[in-house]
Amino acid sequence: MDLAPDQIVRLDESAPAVVLLDQRRLPGEVVELTCRTVPELAEAIRTLAVRGAPAIGVAAAYGLALAALRGDDLAEAERTLAASRPTAVNLFWALERLRDDPTPARARALHEKEVDRCRRMAAHAAELFAPNTRALTHCNAGGLATGGYGSAVGALRAAWERDRLEHVLVDETRPLLQGARLTAWELEQLGIPHAVIADSAAASMMARGDVDLIVTGADRIAANGDTANKIGTYSLAVLAKHHGIPFYVVAPSSTLDADTPTGASIPIEERDGSEITTRFAARNPAFDVTPRELITAIVTEDGAL
Amino acid sequence: MDLAPDQIVRLDESAPAVVLLDQRRLPGEVVELTCRTVPELAEAIRTLAVRGAPAIGVAAAYGLALAALRGDDLAEAERTLAASRPTAVNLFWALERLRDDPTPARARALHEKEVDRCRRMAAHAAELFAPNTRALTHCNAGGLATGGYGSAVGALRAAWERDRLEHVLVDETRPLLQGARLTAWELEQLGIPHAVIADSAAASMMARGDVDLIVTGADRIAANGDTANKIGTYSLAVLAKHHGIPFYVVAPSSTLDADTPTGASIPIEERDGSEITTRFAARNPAFDVTPRELITAIVTEDGAL
Repeated sequence: MDLAPDQIVRLDESAPAVVLLDQRRLPGEVVELTCRTVPELAEAIRTLAVRGAPAIGVAAAYGLALAALRGDDLAEAERTLAASRPTAVNLFWALERLRDDPTPARARALHEKEVDRCRRMAAHAAELFAPNTRALTHCNAGGLATGGYGSAVGALRAAWERDRLEHVLVDETRPLLQGARLTAWELEQLGIPHAVIADSAAASMMARGDVDLIVTGADRIAANGDTANKIGTYSLAVLAKHHGIPFYVVAPSSTLDADTPTGASIPIEERDGSEITTRFAARNPAFDVTPRELITAIVTEDGAL
Repeated sequence: MDLAPDQIVRLDESAPAVVLLDQRRLPGEVVELTCRTVPELAEAIRTLAVRGAPAIGVAAAYGLALAALRGDDLAEAERTLAASRPTAVNLFWALERLRDDPTPARARALHEKEVDRCRRMAAHAAELFAPNTRALTHCNAGGLATGGYGSAVGALRAAWERDRLEHVLVDETRPLLQGARLTAWELEQLGIPHAVIADSAAASMMARGDVDLIVTGADRIAANGDTANKIGTYSLAVLAKHHGIPFYVVAPSSTLDADTPTGASIPIEERDGSEITTRFAARNPAFDVTPRELITAIVTEDGAL
């Protein structure tokens, strides 16, 4: 079974509305969220009803098309969407793509192209898998995160289809458990063997020899290759280096940010501490930056960089 | 405010019973658990009502004294307690200490000596703190874990009293959140500034320069110095090495296991996957082993090794 792109995010022109599979409620409930205004959609992005850098971009593209259908002030709609989350560059990329032609056809074309990029980069990434690979992934870089097919999970499914994948360890990915809730759910539907682990158990699994490669998505890749992704990704990259395990980033070219020279310039979202604990003081950076020297290869639809 | 040793675990001779502060219910509820039989106490250890290697040892010592007061078969009582958890060597150490003289006085003397060891090793460990140290710790190695004063948290409080500690980052410590639930609670009561972080954010905090040293407890230290402790400790040690940050283990000599040559021989408890997730397959090792070359110093009551 597979999630169709329009099950994840779509524009309903008749409403009009942007309709999302509400990722906050998965896997317990499979329900849609209907956003009839741009502020509603921005709130849905902010609260992670739709998340994952490419999927945020797709949702924002539909959002500008929604604003045009509603006759809203387009500059204000763009500002509202741009203010929803800071790290994923795909958001700003998509808004720029739609600015001059915020039509449903243009937004749908952007969505289709993102899914097509995922399929192409997955095919490239699968070449990096030896037979019987035991992979580890972090957060959710599946179809839910890209509007269909997936980036890191796309690589896993392409490797699985080519009979090169044996098993996937899934970091649960605290604090919001995107691995345990979303990636495990997607892998279950795809029939790919997997087990969830506590994030802090990844190093132990590497030391035991249970991990052949690590594959993640990305939220923003700086011009020099430094990569921002879900908090904990950098940790995995350091641990992979220590254990001599390849560390791959799989992301569409919409995640490349030529205007940001290095990871030091990537804005890192600090989310509310209450996502971790409501009783004690907490710090909750949502992303970290992995320096390029810790990344074995970045795979886009054009191949491994 | 400070937890008195007999608030954490004590023998009530009149009942008779071993009475524990139920650590499963902290910090929400501060309630005691009364164990009137050895199987009840073994279940309390297994389910983490009392946890932390030295505290498990103290509880087991009281358990043998309880068995003697009840007129139980002492060999069977020892077997029952020994089967409760496999990794912490203090359990077996304490049972051996009580075997020939399972009296309340002997158990209380063992408890007092453990707390005294904590104070002495904390004084040694505090010497390793430069002024304004920002420390990071994992799991709970506080008074709750040792039956009073604490090992790693003991070092933190000794450093705080000597005005050398600025702030503590507390790994929340998935899956059972001993850091977020227990260490943060203890630090709050001691008035030591702290913030809880997701375990996977520790690397990012190190990269930002926010961590001057890492200090943890231990469940078993092999003859060569390899150290088993809560899952995630090994991860921190690798990350500390990558960032050039000292990594200290603080543990009483009751945690040293001369009969286990290296970490490879330490039994690692694999707990039920349901502690991580009930919906998907999960792997849940409760401990990992940190090779000695990643440990800057092991501090016992005799000083830094």
